[in-house]
Amino acid sequence: MNPSILKRKIFNDPIYGFITVPDELTFALIDHPWFQRLRRIKQLGLTNLVYPGALHTRFHHALGAMHLMTEAIEVLRMKGHEISEEEAQGATVAILLHDIGHGPFSHALEHSIVSHISHEKISELFMTQLNVEFDGKLSLAIKIFRNQYKKKFLYQLVSSQLDVDRLDYLKRDSFFTGVSEGIVSSDRIIKMLNVVKGQLVVEVKGIYSVEKFIIARRLMYWQVYLHKTVLSAENLLVNILSRAKELALKQTDLFCTPALHTFLYGRFSEKQFSENSALLQAFSELDDNDIMASIKVWTKHPDKILSLLCRNLVDRHLYRIELQKKPFQPDLIADLKRVARRKYKLKGSEVNYFVFSANVTNDTYRPDKISINILLKDGSVLDFSNASDHLGIDVISRTVKKFFLCCPKDLKAPDAE
Amino acid sequence: MNPSILKRKIFNDPIYGFITVPDELTFALIDHPWFQRLRRIKQLGLTNLVYPGALHTRFHHALGAMHLMTEAIEVLRMKGHEISEEEAQGATVAILLHDIGHGPFSHALEHSIVSHISHEKISELFMTQLNVEFDGKLSLAIKIFRNQYKKKFLYQLVSSQLDVDRLDYLKRDSFFTGVSEGIVSSDRIIKMLNVVKGQLVVEVKGIYSVEKFIIARRLMYWQVYLHKTVLSAENLLVNILSRAKELALKQTDLFCTPALHTFLYGRFSEKQFSENSALLQAFSELDDNDIMASIKVWTKHPDKILSLLCRNLVDRHLYRIELQKKPFQPDLIADLKRVARRKYKLKGSEVNYFVFSANVTNDTYRPDKISINILLKDGSVLDFSNASDHLGIDVISRTVKKFFLCCPKDLKAPDAE
Amino acid sequence: MNPSILKRKIFNDPIYGFITVPDELTFALIDHPWFQRLRRIKQLGLTNLVYPGALHTRFHHALGAMHLMTEAIEVLRMKGHEISEEEAQGATVAILLHDIGHGPFSHALEHSIVSHISHEKISELFMTQLNVEFDGKLSLAIKIFRNQYKKKFLYQLVSSQLDVDRLDYLKRDSFFTGVSEGIVSSDRIIKMLNVVKGQLVVEVKGIYSVEKFIIARRLMYWQVYLHKTVLSAENLLVNILSRAKELALKQTDLFCTPALHTFLYGRFSEKQFSENSALLQAFSELDDNDIMASIKVWTKHPDKILSLLCRNLVDRHLYRIELQKKPFQPDLIADLKRVARRKYKLKGSEVNYFVFSANVTNDTYRPDKISINILLKDGSVLDFSNASDHLGIDVISRTVKKFFLCCPKDLKAPDAE
Amino acid sequence: MNPSILKRKIFNDPIYGFITVPDELTFALIDHPWFQRLRRIKQLGLTNLVYPGALHTRFHHALGAMHLMTEAIEVLRMKGHEISEEEAQGATVAILLHDIGHGPFSHALEHSIVSHISHEKISELFMTQLNVEFDGKLSLAIKIFRNQYKKKFLYQLVSSQLDVDRLDYLKRDSFFTGVSEGIVSSDRIIKMLNVVKGQLVVEVKGIYSVEKFIIARRLMYWQVYLHKTVLSAENLLVNILSRAKELALKQTDLFCTPALHTFLYGRFSEKQFSENSALLQAFSELDDNDIMASIKVWTKHPDKILSLLCRNLVDRHLYRIELQKKPFQPDLIADLKRVARRKYKLKGSEVNYFVFSANVTNDTYRPDKISINILLKDGSVLDFSNASDHLGIDVISRTVKKFFLCCPKDLKAPDAE
Repeated sequence: MNPSILKRKIFNDPIYGFITVPDELTFALIDHPWFQRLRRIKQLGLTNLVYPGALHTRFHHALGAMHLMTEAIEVLRMKGHEISEEEAQGATVAILLHDIGHGPFSHALEHSIVSHISHEKISELFMTQLNVEFDGKLSLAIKIFRNQYKKKFLYQLVSSQLDVDRLDYLKRDSFFTGVSEGIVSSDRIIKMLNVVKGQLVVEVKGIYSVEKFIIARRLMYWQVYLHKTVLSAENLLVNILSRAKELALKQTDLFCTPALHTFLYGRFSEKQFSENSALLQAFSELDDNDIMASIKVWTKHPDKILSLLCRNLVDRHLYRIELQKKPFQPDLIADLKRVARRKYKLKGSEVNYFVFSANVTNDTYRPDKISINILLKDGSVLDFSNASDHLGIDVISRTVKKFFLCCPKDLKAPDAE
Repeated sequence: MNPSILKRKIFNDPIYGFITVPDELTFALIDHPWFQRLRRIKQLGLTNLVYPGALHTRFHHALGAMHLMTEAIEVLRMKGHEISEEEAQGATVAILLHDIGHGPFSHALEHSIVSHISHEKISELFMTQLNVEFDGKLSLAIKIFRNQYKKKFLYQLVSSQLDVDRLDYLKRDSFFTGVSEGIVSSDRIIKMLNVVKGQLVVEVKGIYSVEKFIIARRLMYWQVYLHKTVLSAENLLVNILSRAKELALKQTDLFCTPALHTFLYGRFSEKQFSENSALLQAFSELDDNDIMASIKVWTKHPDKILSLLCRNLVDRHLYRIELQKKPFQPDLIADLKRVARRKYKLKGSEVNYFVFSANVTNDTYRPDKISINILLKDGSVLDFSNASDHLGIDVISRTVKKFFLCCPKDLKAPDAE
Repeated sequence: MNPSILKRKIFNDPIYGFITVPDELTFALIDHPWFQRLRRIKQLGLTNLVYPGALHTRFHHALGAMHLMTEAIEVLRMKGHEISEEEAQGATVAILLHDIGHGPFSHALEHSIVSHISHEKISELFMTQLNVEFDGKLSLAIKIFRNQYKKKFLYQLVSSQLDVDRLDYLKRDSFFTGVSEGIVSSDRIIKMLNVVKGQLVVEVKGIYSVEKFIIARRLMYWQVYLHKTVLSAENLLVNILSRAKELALKQTDLFCTPALHTFLYGRFSEKQFSENSALLQAFSELDDNDIMASIKVWTKHPDKILSLLCRNLVDRHLYRIELQKKPFQPDLIADLKRVARRKYKLKGSEVNYFVFSANVTNDTYRPDKISINILLKDGSVLDFSNASDHLGIDVISRTVKKFFLCCPKDLKAPDAE
Repeated sequence: MNPSILKRKIFNDPIYGFITVPDELTFALIDHPWFQRLRRIKQLGLTNLVYPGALHTRFHHALGAMHLMTEAIEVLRMKGHEISEEEAQGATVAILLHDIGHGPFSHALEHSIVSHISHEKISELFMTQLNVEFDGKLSLAIKIFRNQYKKKFLYQLVSSQLDVDRLDYLKRDSFFTGVSEGIVSSDRIIKMLNVVKGQLVVEVKGIYSVEKFIIARRLMYWQVYLHKTVLSAENLLVNILSRAKELALKQTDLFCTPALHTFLYGRFSEKQFSENSALLQAFSELDDNDIMASIKVWTKHPDKILSLLCRNLVDRHLYRIELQKKPFQPDLIADLKRVARRKYKLKGSEVNYFVFSANVTNDTYRPDKISINILLKDGSVLDFSNASDHLGIDVISRTVKKFFLCCPKDLKAPDAE
């Protein structure tokens, strides 16, 4: 046995059985504290309040996507497409780190206390910094990640409407939630991948699997990601963090872990993040535990609004939520606010922490984005929406928008969930 | 332990774990030679030539559908709908026996040697006969099966566009073929069943599962049931049986099991089946083994056409087949026939055993059939095609028609499969 | 729909599909903050550092065990054993709450900062308190939990060597770790349960499943629960908490969530817990987040030992660990300690935080505990260890003891994992 | 795309997802009529009468074992062991063809109509003949198959107590029967394979998986392969074929497919098989259909014994069977025979077709056979039975012998199954 084999690391994965780390650089990146931190950030935030199994982390998803990337590369090589060792490593590292910029409860955080910079931008900052630490070994990965590398299909494997990111997260989220309809045959799709004129395509034999993939993704959106109770929980978290931020900006004293303190009491621009590496380091110290541990303490905070919201989250007394295709009547909302103001003794805009309406949308397929290309038997390539019998462009390019209305459960008679 | 428990029979099933036979009548029916015969009839005929695991039988599917029926009844009872023991048994027996009239390779048989009566009709004849044997205990089951019973939802569980038959066969066929995209969450759908004004409905929370079910069924059609190689194999079998019948009608001597002999050398109308119980008994003695054992012998028959076709099936040298959305050019077909005539020394219409074109169609959803009804939160009921965001009536009611062209593989240069 | 149906709650579970909450009392208990808190306590503590999927919570396991209990009761009723509604509820509640007394990282906590009271005792205190809140409705559950109820088999379902607790956790832990060898056929075993003279038995047809269950449990012990890297991580946590406690008792200032503060700076006897309900409430506010959030802050604590240990845990730089059947040579340990003392500049017993040896044991089957009884065909009952052909008493009653030695990885040349 | 890719064949497999055929020789062998015939021979004979899903064929198992072989070779290569392309192909072909000599219902056939030659010998004859057809390309495969090749570990992968044959059949049989306890983690075991001094070993980290494998195999023996109802069915088939042979040797006329006729009316020595290739060809034309089609006709044969036995098999009225550890009392057997003789009007030894006793044995592990070697961390190698804590040599080397007694069900009061 040679040493390089001794260090070969295998991860157990209930989905793929085993995930093998392909090389030492990848291994070293996984071992880095910035990546290890993803072990403490759940992939689906508060979704476990609805699907109790959904506790899997961004760490696990990143490993899974890396695994699919190595499989995709193997398939493409077998079909005669040259991919050098360096390119393979670049694509693998790009997918491994594609989500490294996510903070805890990312969506909620971006809508409250870390609002001037996106997680995509932070991912890039982390990668740039790591590239320095690792003597430029990530340069190709970064090129691919930014779609600046000539072999476009490598970028498309990392980020397109049928990338290994989506293949893994649909499969993984479906597995851990138990929503079996979301199962995607990543195996079958990956076996059908090919490259034509530098672009990633799916051979026509795989068209029904792509159809299924599109529908499964749509189903996961409404059944899981935008499940109304999940929306309710996430909006409660947004409100908690917004209220805390409001108090913090007034210099109110709030129990905080140091990592959270930085971002609760400060306000930072993208520029500051880029220039101040201490800020990035501070961000890297933040995870789910900081948020939840602080919220638990806030259940006893003197600010009635904050403590009530926190108690509701901790004890899982979520908002009552309704979801519908049309906007809610302003009158209805106003009525509810009036009742809430009286009941909870709220002043001015405080009622917006308890009664609010907004909307969510979901695009099944975006023909304006990097499309899914189907390779026909005669060698021609068609956009998926033109190649499918049923899921024509007219159908799947419809954006579905739904409106929701949240209010405390005790404001109206309880309804069936 | 009391005796009724001692006779309680449990079947092992890789899909549901265990299937419990609910009562003694059902147990006695399963034990009957006419039902046991289904153990020797594969659910998917020759599909195992493409998906080697697809060897499951109509016996197993009937048990599975029975299992789902008992689950559906339990759910409906829990939701407060009264279903008497007798009604439950009626529905269970109806689904258990719904396919008892299938012969071996049913589709091929109906297109060749047993062509004047449908399997549905034979199922009814078997049920009527069994009702005599079992002292009228099947009367209610037959009523439900014929949709003559007042509680329409019981019929709809047996036969509609979302019945336990489809739920089981999609799941089972998906399991044994390994086409994981066909997996249907029968659990979730059954939990969402309800009854409104005597009609079966699905509660709105289950709408994405119904969408998924519709797409999964469509996918299974093109990926499995109408897979081009499966079509090729089935048409080869139709041609073999047709040629054998042709020879038999000319009194040519053909090795035959006695059961097959009756139907190969005779020609029977529905009326004869109804009036002559010996004929029904003869039919009940026919299964996959008769067909395959005879075909194997015919590989050495002096009729060159028959022996060649049979050899092709036994050694799995199937027709080369192409599938496309438009009809094939008559010229192309004529050309191929000309080559084939010369190559195989065929006279007149004999060439049609080797070169032929036809079409297949698939309806994803038929709004003119018993529709899938969705129960909205406000208590109203909508047809599924109006309730779904994406799979609107315009989309899923399109009938997809595909044309195929078959010819021997050695007639043209071989193509990639 | 009647109201009781409206409140019927169904949990999604990737293992059983759905878990139905059987009645309103159970539902109310699940809704209670003390039970909801189990959502924030991982079933397997730090095991996710080795098996990244192992993030499932005590909440989910308790629901799963409840589900198996309702199935077991149904089977026993079908076999003619009378179990009243009240008894069924008692058994269900008993299993639901059997682990409610677990704190975060229970094992580590009991070996460091909450050391004078067991989680079993705390479970009982919670149950007693809940019984007051719920007007005595838990009395029968508590009786069953304490094995004071006449129908002993109900207690045996809750707690014996083949109880629904073990059936669920083996299955669940196996599922989330991906260690497929641990899979237990809970279905098959539950179908084989019976009661003879008031004692729980397994019918002889299930004997191989019981054998498999015993071996699977043993395998899970060495492959998961006592996996050497898991042991290494857990001992690191014990050392962190012990060091923190040591500092706290010296009145050193340590960042702490309030819930953790109580137990880090205080020391409470079982008696105090029993008499002071505020203490129980404080304990109920402690979960995984408190521990991890605090440890993350301690990575920067001025105490070098504490901060180093914490950094090692957070970045997953675990001890190097060796496991063997014999005790380690005292000389070897002394040598390592000498090196460690020098390298890390440690005084006196401080080295024990870095170099230490201990042992773990595992009993496959304890004939002195409530045994697994096998019901033979002639109606007689045998202890499992006498009924199995291979897994005789001589074999499975051997206690396996293993010794381990931990030290920092940089103390010796790194070895293959 | 180059042509070699175009011909790359992928099989769908519900167990591994996809099975890729590694090269053109292997593809040509799979395509050969002698291999295609395995599509018509069930792996588990009549086991489907107990486990209705167990219809999988020897064809599918051979593909599965081939798949595991390619995985094992990949693992060993990654660990630095040189395996040439030719050697890899040799091992792959050897495992692909290892069971090609099996006839239909192999065990029953060998105990009745094809009794002077073993299936292992026929496998070798087929392979030798194929080697001629394929211009000597199978020479290395045959060498490996006969353990005449220098790299012994290749033979051990094909045939030892932990070979890919066993890994696949345990997994496959477990999957199709639904006996989930038989699941073997082939993945984990294969990842742990290594070679030391030319011998196959399992690294010590895999020891619990090996333990589990041993127990799973044992469980499958008693739960499936030697399940008493399966034994009952197989013995019924042996008796049917023996009676038919007895009648044939008296020149009684029996309906027969030609392939069956050869072996029913003839009696051939191993020498004749070796020298007469027409005999081998005749054997290759025999499959499950010949047996079942003929038996169905024999249900109406004038010989009362034959027709009764056949009717019993076709309608699944199997013998009542008892299984116990001690031999049955001769008196009891004699009594039963007396009753049977009277009841069925049997003369002389004819009663032995209806009442008989025999025994079956099962070795969990044979230390005298090629043992499973465990590679310890220090580089030493131990026999598994010395390396396992619990499954010591004393335990698993015990041969378990069970006696069974069969008689018609109506001879005694029916008993619970």
